[in-house]
Amino acid sequence: MTISIAHLGPAGTNAESAALAYANWLQENQQKSAILCAYPSIAQTLKAAAQGETHLAIVPVENSIEGSVAMTLDTFWQLDRLQIQQALVLPIAHALISCASELTKIKSVYSHPQALAQCQGWLEKFLPLAQLIPANSTTEALEHLSSDETASAIASERAAELYNLPVLAHPINDRPDNCTRFWVVSLQPSVTGKYISLAFSVPANVPGALVKPLQALAKRGINLSRIESRPAKKSLGDYLFFFDLEADLREVSTQEALDELKGYTQILKIFGSYTLVSGVAESRYEIG
Amino acid sequence: MTISIAHLGPAGTNAESAALAYANWLQENQQKSAILCAYPSIAQTLKAAAQGETHLAIVPVENSIEGSVAMTLDTFWQLDRLQIQQALVLPIAHALISCASELTKIKSVYSHPQALAQCQGWLEKFLPLAQLIPANSTTEALEHLSSDETASAIASERAAELYNLPVLAHPINDRPDNCTRFWVVSLQPSVTGKYISLAFSVPANVPGALVKPLQALAKRGINLSRIESRPAKKSLGDYLFFFDLEADLREVSTQEALDELKGYTQILKIFGSYTLVSGVAESRYEIG
Repeated sequence: MTISIAHLGPAGTNAESAALAYANWLQENQQKSAILCAYPSIAQTLKAAAQGETHLAIVPVENSIEGSVAMTLDTFWQLDRLQIQQALVLPIAHALISCASELTKIKSVYSHPQALAQCQGWLEKFLPLAQLIPANSTTEALEHLSSDETASAIASERAAELYNLPVLAHPINDRPDNCTRFWVVSLQPSVTGKYISLAFSVPANVPGALVKPLQALAKRGINLSRIESRPAKKSLGDYLFFFDLEADLREVSTQEALDELKGYTQILKIFGSYTLVSGVAESRYEIG
Repeated sequence: MTISIAHLGPAGTNAESAALAYANWLQENQQKSAILCAYPSIAQTLKAAAQGETHLAIVPVENSIEGSVAMTLDTFWQLDRLQIQQALVLPIAHALISCASELTKIKSVYSHPQALAQCQGWLEKFLPLAQLIPANSTTEALEHLSSDETASAIASERAAELYNLPVLAHPINDRPDNCTRFWVVSLQPSVTGKYISLAFSVPANVPGALVKPLQALAKRGINLSRIESRPAKKSLGDYLFFFDLEADLREVSTQEALDELKGYTQILKIFGSYTLVSGVAESRYEIG
């Protein structure tokens, strides 16, 4: 059976690189072949898997510099049916791509806002006068570069190759250890991994309301590797909390912690118990 | 003396509306006149105040739908010298602006990514086929609308008036109670308000590390109205935490809580003790 994997497109995005890396991993470790299906937004990528159009979706969750990908967390909470099967961490290196003969001729830089932010320092130093123009993806602007030699884009070296465009500088990200964590998700139940992701709303306001959930985990020695708040989209001051735990859903102490947590929360959603994929080509692995 | 206020420009942005509302408040309550100074990014707006180019800066911190403004939090942590003088909350209503004779003729929608996200539902319903194009501000694309009748932009009604452009639909934000909280900041020390904002890094990993800071506040009855994590920009899993407290810096219990907090944190930065401005024209006031 060929596995279909939804990802944010078009070709050359970092999400596509993650999908390719995962497809290779599937081939090597499970002898399964995969096809990639590009979607125009993260929300549509996740909906494709939620509606059974594809077997899997792979979406960015968090970058080491720019933080959480709000669209992924918000859509995940809303869709309510997807489960995280695996996580993978990919290093991110950005290149400045342009047909300009030298840096001084560049007047504009196109890229996804996260990529522009990740290269802020380099841009201020080498292209202080260029206009920074946000795009829907790192690759969106590439097709226009050959007709405008004053324009440039920030994308991966692989994208430059795909579009047959010159790389003027690489890597230009401010931190060499820039990496992004992705989730591989599907409609299958997921209960057997080392990591658990969940989210909840609390009945009242935040104050003591967060202490008890944290204590329920801490007193059982469960490591909370990440906490993120997102607006509940009602009024300012109403939040959802997203937790990543290092815990096994099959252990009694984990079940007890989750039962206790349920008592402190209004709505609690468990997004799955999953493993971190290792052995993906060119990847470094880190998780909090 | 005329007070200079830095804000994200150009004219017609919601940040400019906030600066105008605050300038009116200064006039009415302190008999001070103000001039507005537009800057091309939030980082540059904050730097203007930090370097003494302007007396004040006003920046968005959090929207009730889209959440924290990462650029504001990250720049505030880095600059290290600014103090929050006041907060204000402004309602946000978005309009669809276009020279098209009807909605069916619209092929593209330009706006700031946060505004596009805040109107997602409306766009899916009424303009499902239009291309959504992110811009640096809600007003950036307005000047091009008169030359392209298939283009539209999402901005405020006030922006449509300023640019003399027709409004096709208003309000189009998915939630009527959409509002944004702004901080008014300067180099002056700030110690006399009802709210305290602070941020810290923790020595080790997150797990028990967050329980103790939260307990230090909860056991003294201090309400934590907001918690936000941001990457420390080192590796995945290293975070900074941003807290908003309802507490008075001049009270002994607050001082004790902050002293205890200091013991649990690596770097602790107090961003000021400030009040919420009330009586700003057309505003609703809410804080977590």
